[in-house]
Amino acid sequence: MTEQHPRWFTHRLRVRYQETDQMSVVYHANYLNWFELGRTELIRELGLPYRELEARGLLLPVVELESKFKAPARYDDLIVIWTRVAEFSSLMVRFESQIRRESETDAEPSGFADKPEGELLVSGGTKHIWVNRDWKPVRVSKEAPDLYALLEQAGRGVPS
Amino acid sequence: MTEQHPRWFTHRLRVRYQETDQMSVVYHANYLNWFELGRTELIRELGLPYRELEARGLLLPVVELESKFKAPARYDDLIVIWTRVAEFSSLMVRFESQIRRESETDAEPSGFADKPEGELLVSGGTKHIWVNRDWKPVRVSKEAPDLYALLEQAGRGVPS
Amino acid sequence: MTEQHPRWFTHRLRVRYQETDQMSVVYHANYLNWFELGRTELIRELGLPYRELEARGLLLPVVELESKFKAPARYDDLIVIWTRVAEFSSLMVRFESQIRRESETDAEPSGFADKPEGELLVSGGTKHIWVNRDWKPVRVSKEAPDLYALLEQAGRGVPS
Amino acid sequence: MTEQHPRWFTHRLRVRYQETDQMSVVYHANYLNWFELGRTELIRELGLPYRELEARGLLLPVVELESKFKAPARYDDLIVIWTRVAEFSSLMVRFESQIRRESETDAEPSGFADKPEGELLVSGGTKHIWVNRDWKPVRVSKEAPDLYALLEQAGRGVPS
Repeated sequence: MTEQHPRWFTHRLRVRYQETDQMSVVYHANYLNWFELGRTELIRELGLPYRELEARGLLLPVVELESKFKAPARYDDLIVIWTRVAEFSSLMVRFESQIRRESETDAEPSGFADKPEGELLVSGGTKHIWVNRDWKPVRVSKEAPDLYALLEQAGRGVPS
Repeated sequence: MTEQHPRWFTHRLRVRYQETDQMSVVYHANYLNWFELGRTELIRELGLPYRELEARGLLLPVVELESKFKAPARYDDLIVIWTRVAEFSSLMVRFESQIRRESETDAEPSGFADKPEGELLVSGGTKHIWVNRDWKPVRVSKEAPDLYALLEQAGRGVPS
Repeated sequence: MTEQHPRWFTHRLRVRYQETDQMSVVYHANYLNWFELGRTELIRELGLPYRELEARGLLLPVVELESKFKAPARYDDLIVIWTRVAEFSSLMVRFESQIRRESETDAEPSGFADKPEGELLVSGGTKHIWVNRDWKPVRVSKEAPDLYALLEQAGRGVPS
Repeated sequence: MTEQHPRWFTHRLRVRYQETDQMSVVYHANYLNWFELGRTELIRELGLPYRELEARGLLLPVVELESKFKAPARYDDLIVIWTRVAEFSSLMVRFESQIRRESETDAEPSGFADKPEGELLVSGGTKHIWVNRDWKPVRVSKEAPDLYALLEQAGRGVPS
């Protein structure tokens, strides 16, 4: 049995000057901004931009975060953020993230891909829960069944 | 005739590592964050924290900004933000800001002072207008006369 | 007589969640990061990435900055940064910048364009001087004549 | 047997406007900046500012990071960063960090304290390795025995 959709979503960016620090590398907290960019673009690709989720009163704050830093990114590097839905339920979502460096010649458009490629710089993951505007947990399968269906599609084939 | 209140308010901070860039100096946009910190602390000192203003539905966005950069601040420097109300009306406020470096031995508590001291690094100013939550201009003398009275006190002696 | 190269360079980005503040708009200092992105991408397009300039010991710090904020950008907006060389000499460069909002359907690739289009949000400019690694001013026409020639090309037609 | 030095070091700050996002809470990556501030101030208190370490060619990049987010901090909150040396060897240091909210009336100067107090918002830890300017691992007990002695003092009483 084969999967219909590759599991990792890629999003490309260039390191901004402002993201460096005086060690001449990217300041470590910025990788976590990139994790978020990757999640955002994955959700957009699924068909439901995060902006619309918020407009419907659904927030998805980070409740857990872990990360390993193998090698630093540097100013002007071409970066690929790899993101996939690692786990989800009616109440939570867990994303897996990788930051990889790409050569100028390898640059491809963002999209889904089977297997991460490129030099691994940072890996990690974040766990999120669905809450409403008052920060009370909500059951997304009930509040937004269309969104839940999209997550099922994105998470298909992921071992529970 | 002497003024009862010195015109400049001082607020001290240390340069954070995250505020540096790979030129080994503070990234220039961060000075504008410091301008804001200075304004915030001045308003707090006047007796009406910005948080309370927002709770009352008053916002004070920046509409104009200008700045000159004389010398860079570096990691771990002791910085004094000098701020004063340069001009105000019922509709707007203009602040004047200076960023100065201080030696460790000169460190004094934050407060009002007559005349800026220390090595001048950055000078500038910001103009703001009062708006409500829908970003419509409001007349602060009408909407919040208590606040307006505080501004009159802070701006006393400033040439119109 | 017509110019061979349009004067404004455009670079597109999407507003990141991290760039918002609790007024639900982009925090004002972030527009200045975008100004820098626009300058960086213009310089890259000219054929000499800023990374290479730094590798040759040339830095281009901001010495003056001014900006007007007409309307706020919001999360997930599609933004176009418009940048052009407004003035330059052997010792300095002045850039002019505009931040404009674009509709999803208007999105075009980055490149040169004759005249800014889209809703104007922020306009401004920055003045820079060329310095070496010890922050001493350098004459770029002497230190890097190839770079100077590129600036002459980019600034062509700009009144001195 | 009693310890001579309490194990947690406290450092106070106020939430900056720029640290909020449009959820009206502190953007999650900023807590990691605060973790760093706490580590920096602990090291300063030990008698060897990080700035001096860098001047001696020693860098201490983050290699692992984990964090749990219990409750959000909000604009203008009074925050206490609690930091302690959880583990160290000649090659690495591991810090434990907590972000807690404090009431205005509880505010005390920064310093060492026996046991974390206040409302817990975020907890986590970071692992670091000592490297030189070329990012090669160094043995700090050899390269900087004075620093190593300070770490032994700070980590005293911590179960291995």
